[in-house]
Amino acid sequence: MRKHNFSPGPATLPAVVFQQAADALVDYNHSGLSIAEISHRAPEFMQIIEEASALVRELYQLPDYFEVLWLPGGASSQLAVAPMNLLGLNDSMAIVDTGFWALRSIDAARELAQVHVLASASETHYDRIPKDWTLPADAKYLHVVSNETIEGIQYHQYPEVDIPLVADMTSDFLSKPLDVDRFGIIFASAQKNFGIAGITCVLVNTKVLPSNSDRKVPTIFDYRTHIQNQSLYHTVPTFPVYVALLMLRWIKAEGGLDEMQKRSIAKSELLYTEIDRNPLFEGIAVKEDRSVLNACFRAISPEIEIQFLAHCSKNNVVGIKGFPTVGGFRASMYNGMNIESVELLVDLMKNFKPEL
Amino acid sequence: MRKHNFSPGPATLPAVVFQQAADALVDYNHSGLSIAEISHRAPEFMQIIEEASALVRELYQLPDYFEVLWLPGGASSQLAVAPMNLLGLNDSMAIVDTGFWALRSIDAARELAQVHVLASASETHYDRIPKDWTLPADAKYLHVVSNETIEGIQYHQYPEVDIPLVADMTSDFLSKPLDVDRFGIIFASAQKNFGIAGITCVLVNTKVLPSNSDRKVPTIFDYRTHIQNQSLYHTVPTFPVYVALLMLRWIKAEGGLDEMQKRSIAKSELLYTEIDRNPLFEGIAVKEDRSVLNACFRAISPEIEIQFLAHCSKNNVVGIKGFPTVGGFRASMYNGMNIESVELLVDLMKNFKPEL
Repeated sequence: MRKHNFSPGPATLPAVVFQQAADALVDYNHSGLSIAEISHRAPEFMQIIEEASALVRELYQLPDYFEVLWLPGGASSQLAVAPMNLLGLNDSMAIVDTGFWALRSIDAARELAQVHVLASASETHYDRIPKDWTLPADAKYLHVVSNETIEGIQYHQYPEVDIPLVADMTSDFLSKPLDVDRFGIIFASAQKNFGIAGITCVLVNTKVLPSNSDRKVPTIFDYRTHIQNQSLYHTVPTFPVYVALLMLRWIKAEGGLDEMQKRSIAKSELLYTEIDRNPLFEGIAVKEDRSVLNACFRAISPEIEIQFLAHCSKNNVVGIKGFPTVGGFRASMYNGMNIESVELLVDLMKNFKPEL
Repeated sequence: MRKHNFSPGPATLPAVVFQQAADALVDYNHSGLSIAEISHRAPEFMQIIEEASALVRELYQLPDYFEVLWLPGGASSQLAVAPMNLLGLNDSMAIVDTGFWALRSIDAARELAQVHVLASASETHYDRIPKDWTLPADAKYLHVVSNETIEGIQYHQYPEVDIPLVADMTSDFLSKPLDVDRFGIIFASAQKNFGIAGITCVLVNTKVLPSNSDRKVPTIFDYRTHIQNQSLYHTVPTFPVYVALLMLRWIKAEGGLDEMQKRSIAKSELLYTEIDRNPLFEGIAVKEDRSVLNACFRAISPEIEIQFLAHCSKNNVVGIKGFPTVGGFRASMYNGMNIESVELLVDLMKNFKPEL
């Protein structure tokens, strides 16, 4: 029996996707070859990566001047690679400190350029998105962590600014429609909403790439290299791209990004309603900034937390322990998470009788 | 029926490994979870990466001062990352131009430091390893491409120098025992000898890491980051690591690196003997530098080449077309390649009757 896995990423995918991926790993489309032994330059794989890019393009309705890249290295590499590509040696960028991933982004960008931290939610332990700040005139772009996976807060409206947004969307990519024109770069690792660990999708608005820069970007980290070579400058992680394609097909077949958003809202409302109702639990983030992907909450005592974790575990609900810096619980509900699993978690909360 | 796949990488793996990987993708060890949805920080995955590192350590008999890292980004990233980590802004490294991957390494290193190209095999179309050169006094290390996958030439003896070797072993990692103490850094992508595309194993001899440098290496590309965090600074590509573990277990169970070497020699001798005997074919590299992993050869006319490719294809032998810059055929015979497949290819060469 499959467990109900609320892990923050790598995260659960629909069972049918895991099965399709497994079948292809043994014999891809009755070709007598594993999908993972096919050359990244073979026509069979070229079709896969082209279809995956076309689906991202279609789902987000990307204009022509956006490029879809498939890169290894993870979103964490993009925290350095994006500033390398966008900023000259004396340029600056701006960022709002929303939590763990904003801090990582600040550290990575500071190694390369000037960073304006416009505001920080650290004083309230990152329970909200700071919205009261002023953009300095010299910032080339505003970096946003679209959804802070660890603290469970999310931008429901992106800041209105005159400069491009560079967005780390690792935990809410493909979970809702976007006005992409406001973005310079969007990047996301696959292992939350659209695949397994090992591949990052990067959307590059070519209008924001500087035509020249005083920074020497290593060829392998230059977006232009991968645009020119359609992500095949070197061996792309072929199997992770294939799983991403399966997820993209699944997302489209299920109804696209409007439907993913509807489901995310439905799942998270179900859970937050119970968190707010149940006197044994309390939410961590302020309501208006709560993430629909990662619901962070705690029990009213550490002893009750231990008992509830055991109650979940006994009922095949796993992966809900919070990150150490936040504590409590975190239920991650990405595209691959069924509402039935959330219903089960809510039932467990309702029926939970701690021994005091 | 499984095809006989001589692709240069991504490359074939034993059928049992693909099957084990597929089973784990649906249900890992009867856990009710896919291996690909388990957190990289969960005990189940920590065991996997620790066992994989321990097996690399055991197979290569690594001394304590070597660290085993599992990094995303591919060996191509390491062509930039290794010089970043080892060279100060005014330092220099040396390299012998042995072919496609040496040229890539030269280009990547030149973006970061001084590069001494000691010799080049370009005049003979990279059919041999240049051995007549002098090491400049200021080179911090010598970069070697252990096996040039595209041209089919391989170091059977590494150069005897007083500085550390930095080796791109992507196409012959885990294919033979090594005197590791001569190496500063060894890196290899998994998709040839020990897994699928998406993960790179990097062996770092900590004795060669400079204690300080005037170069600011971005944290994400600093080997120290990944040493301190045991490759879990960010989300490692978990499924590719798991497949690497399956291959490492398989390599050990089959007899380890001595046995892999014995098999590589047996497979390649079988094929080269036929290439040399058969008047319809000719080898490309000089005999003493022929790769035991990638045998490059051609037919005596382009028309015969087309016919032989069709003959192979009809008999379920695929992936033997040479790289465009070299032409002809390339039969790649990594750890996952059965000698039976090589025997079949040799039989096809023997029985091949071109229509002239």
